[in-house]
Amino acid sequence: MIGLDWGTTRLRAFRIAEDGVVRDVRRADRGVLSVKPGGFADTLRDIAGDWLEAGERRVLIAGMAGSRQGWQEVPYLDCPAEFGAIAAAARPVAFDAAEVFILPGLAARDEAGVPEVMRGEETQIVGAADGDARRLVCLPGSHSKWATVAARRIEGFRSYMTGEAFAAIGGATILAQTIEAGAPDPAAFADGVARAGQPGGLLHHLFGVRTRVLLDGVAKTAARAYLSGLLIGHEVRHALPPGAAEVTLIGDAALCGLYRDAIELCGGAARIHDAGAGDAACLGLARLGEQIPWRH
Amino acid sequence: MIGLDWGTTRLRAFRIAEDGVVRDVRRADRGVLSVKPGGFADTLRDIAGDWLEAGERRVLIAGMAGSRQGWQEVPYLDCPAEFGAIAAAARPVAFDAAEVFILPGLAARDEAGVPEVMRGEETQIVGAADGDARRLVCLPGSHSKWATVAARRIEGFRSYMTGEAFAAIGGATILAQTIEAGAPDPAAFADGVARAGQPGGLLHHLFGVRTRVLLDGVAKTAARAYLSGLLIGHEVRHALPPGAAEVTLIGDAALCGLYRDAIELCGGAARIHDAGAGDAACLGLARLGEQIPWRH
Repeated sequence: MIGLDWGTTRLRAFRIAEDGVVRDVRRADRGVLSVKPGGFADTLRDIAGDWLEAGERRVLIAGMAGSRQGWQEVPYLDCPAEFGAIAAAARPVAFDAAEVFILPGLAARDEAGVPEVMRGEETQIVGAADGDARRLVCLPGSHSKWATVAARRIEGFRSYMTGEAFAAIGGATILAQTIEAGAPDPAAFADGVARAGQPGGLLHHLFGVRTRVLLDGVAKTAARAYLSGLLIGHEVRHALPPGAAEVTLIGDAALCGLYRDAIELCGGAARIHDAGAGDAACLGLARLGEQIPWRH
Repeated sequence: MIGLDWGTTRLRAFRIAEDGVVRDVRRADRGVLSVKPGGFADTLRDIAGDWLEAGERRVLIAGMAGSRQGWQEVPYLDCPAEFGAIAAAARPVAFDAAEVFILPGLAARDEAGVPEVMRGEETQIVGAADGDARRLVCLPGSHSKWATVAARRIEGFRSYMTGEAFAAIGGATILAQTIEAGAPDPAAFADGVARAGQPGGLLHHLFGVRTRVLLDGVAKTAARAYLSGLLIGHEVRHALPPGAAEVTLIGDAALCGLYRDAIELCGGAARIHDAGAGDAACLGLARLGEQIPWRH
């Protein structure tokens, strides 16, 4: 089977054997935003043409390819969503001699009724899930997701615009003059996480990023790590329930490391989904692929 | 006396009679950032040369002209700061035949020891203060200030990066595609203020600005008012102590109106410093001018 994790800006292709073992992986900057209307089939041929010629007949796609701007819109599935229901909601698209299915994204509502959506993360969550115990899964990023999973079911999830807020506030406000990229600075990051637990709220805490540099002589590289800790700290303090079990982190190793540190500083525990166990998106595509109603 | 409110991007000049009555007001886009090194005296001659020729011999300046990037750096005065101490900390600069004094900014520390600074707002606070009762004064803006004033003394203050966060998050994230300028929308603004009081925190609430448009059909102009209410609501909920007395608002009338609405929605009361009572900066310059140790 061929599995595609087709996001907004990037595309990853996996060639997966019947036993679930990954035979090959490819990456390309061919995300949905870069594909011209009607160009999805050609992009698939570009990235996996030789695999198809070699006899692959099944293609399963997760991510933004199922959005309105994608290959074909696949409606969101509401939470709670059984893993099997996610596979059952995949929609076929016509493509040469192969069978292509696109997985749905998931939708949820928070307790105030405000909608939540994800596309692609559900497949990574399925891939990282093991056992039936209830667990919290966090996918850090531009729009971080925190999902509750139990018994092969995604019960619900919540999003945090942390990564984008970091880029916008660090890049498009007066703080841009106050922060500077540098080596990791765990102590400054921890200061930011601690600050997130103090009174005043995020909008007040942001102002202090600047004044600590101007008046207290904090280095600009430390200020950047502090800003990162401040934002991740605010996210974690809201997302982590008291007495939560170990959080499973999925994603970029360095970012997951920062989240693990922040979770531990907030009194929680976390483990990073080990790439040694296999890429979560690839594992999820393989698992969901077992439940797709392939014709052949 | 001539009073100048010399900010980062704009300059306002007031000609003030001995009895405190304003005889003339001028505005120019000649903020500190636009003045070349060594160019401050010329800028003063440009905006008030005829007043000086007509015999004015006293010039009092508030704002960023006293910063490191200004005419001459005047150190911050620590809070609590008596109004008289603010005037006493003004520093003279050499200028033709007139006496020119630049007022200090104020510094404070919040309960966690993080520094706070303002330059220019202290003069507006002095101008809007009346009576000796303890009151909360709010100056909404890019970096909103909330100060506690009592008995002709600024006890302390706290800053919120709300205005800049609104511009950066509304302009430099995916929310830019979701919001659109439009007529005032008090209902959508109130929804945002209410949302700020719900669980999840600001970073979570920001994501909902987008999903409400995508999934719940909220109009983009309403989404912009909602984002504004969300950010101002987060500021007000953190800044407004339970059972606070009426808040005095100083600044742009439309922005003060939004803050008054938000404060009332959060259970507080507010009044806008009435321009009919005189511009707060001008009143403050006149009051502090009475305590400057002029030689002539």
